[in-house]
Amino acid sequence: MAKIRRVADDEAGAKLGIVVNNEDTLKNIRVVLTRPSHPGNIGAAARAMKTMGLDDLALVQPRAFPHPEADTRARGGLDIVRAAHLYDSLEDALADCAYAIATSARHREMRHETMDVRTAAHAALATARSQRVAIVFGNESTGLTAEEAQLCRLWAHIPADDGYSSLNLASAVQVCAYELRMAMLAPASAEAEAPQLASVAQVAQLHRQLVALMSRVGYHDPQRPRQLLPRMRRLFARAQLEVDEVNILRGFLKALDRER
Amino acid sequence: MAKIRRVADDEAGAKLGIVVNNEDTLKNIRVVLTRPSHPGNIGAAARAMKTMGLDDLALVQPRAFPHPEADTRARGGLDIVRAAHLYDSLEDALADCAYAIATSARHREMRHETMDVRTAAHAALATARSQRVAIVFGNESTGLTAEEAQLCRLWAHIPADDGYSSLNLASAVQVCAYELRMAMLAPASAEAEAPQLASVAQVAQLHRQLVALMSRVGYHDPQRPRQLLPRMRRLFARAQLEVDEVNILRGFLKALDRER
Repeated sequence: MAKIRRVADDEAGAKLGIVVNNEDTLKNIRVVLTRPSHPGNIGAAARAMKTMGLDDLALVQPRAFPHPEADTRARGGLDIVRAAHLYDSLEDALADCAYAIATSARHREMRHETMDVRTAAHAALATARSQRVAIVFGNESTGLTAEEAQLCRLWAHIPADDGYSSLNLASAVQVCAYELRMAMLAPASAEAEAPQLASVAQVAQLHRQLVALMSRVGYHDPQRPRQLLPRMRRLFARAQLEVDEVNILRGFLKALDRER
Repeated sequence: MAKIRRVADDEAGAKLGIVVNNEDTLKNIRVVLTRPSHPGNIGAAARAMKTMGLDDLALVQPRAFPHPEADTRARGGLDIVRAAHLYDSLEDALADCAYAIATSARHREMRHETMDVRTAAHAALATARSQRVAIVFGNESTGLTAEEAQLCRLWAHIPADDGYSSLNLASAVQVCAYELRMAMLAPASAEAEAPQLASVAQVAQLHRQLVALMSRVGYHDPQRPRQLLPRMRRLFARAQLEVDEVNILRGFLKALDRER
């Protein structure tokens, strides 16, 4: 967690009830590319991040990586490509994040909380002062799976033209990174200190514990898993659970389990 | 000037002192790529425009165009590539525009009025309700020449990271097009009706007339042209001259010329 630190300015501001953003806040934003098809897009996304002061790139099952085209397109963002972390699943990539924001330029039927990317950028930065936040991009053609989407708390919408809404992946990263930087540069606002949110990994543990208990008591039938688990997963992702709340719930589940 | 039209909503709004933006306003924004080196960037820029509802693309001395790579990268913006207009000079590309906004992600020493791209987008849209406005992008490596920069009234700055500020050309187009679309989607504001600005061609005529007269009276020495003409050009570009003002000045110069 080396990147997560509170700087002197911020501490001084906190005493006055003022929260200050600075360049370091952007270092707590992770860009996650999920199953990218074209290695050139990975490089171009890294370049886009670099121009806006972001540097934490996560790749979930890229089709081809490392790849010369990723390096070429990265230009000045080559260090970000070289330092990118590879993950087998989106859940792994989000494990140490407070929450994830999925992105889309398309209108969708969905139950997630949706906002424009400008609003989402301000929300992300408020959390990123003290915890890591992920911005998640789906595959160029297929987007995110339903299961992946359930891991995200918010959906940030780039308001594209109805006639053609298919932004290039790196262009979408550029717009989001630009909005994050603009939010960082915005005058400090007097906001309340954000509560300490549980990480995605902590929430996942809670979810697994719940599922295990549900199975054991016969409430959840592993033969027909589709209705209950996604709903619970989406609920947890949306609820923005705090660390204390997760601890309480897990303690409760443990107690219930012992009871039996 | 088929694209320039005032819609019913706007006219109704004008009576109430309210000015309304809509999708048609974006059609009065021209994206000008000046001496682009890579045909792929032309296509990618067209795609970026298409996603945000822009469609007027002008190319000044592209190195290679038409080109298969431009077509490939354009994807859904192929119609914009096909309809792009070619020009020999930036001045020609701007001839029918009220004014031009140059873009940059780099900090520069310059005398132009500089603002961030969000502010510039609002200014451009206010004018684009009734007149064409150009957003000008320089060559990928060399940017705009001093002479080209003098043709632009404003300089829009994408606030990039000091460590690496080199956005991909199409990414810069994407950010600007996105801000134009966001400005278009912003709630209608009660703004005063913008005055009818002189076109770049009208201002250029005024400039030529002035230079001719200066030469004839011996105030301008064509052997040492560099100090006076760029200054006058920059002044005119910055001044945002209205049609009436240009007519008055040109009439005055004509009268002075006759006087001799």
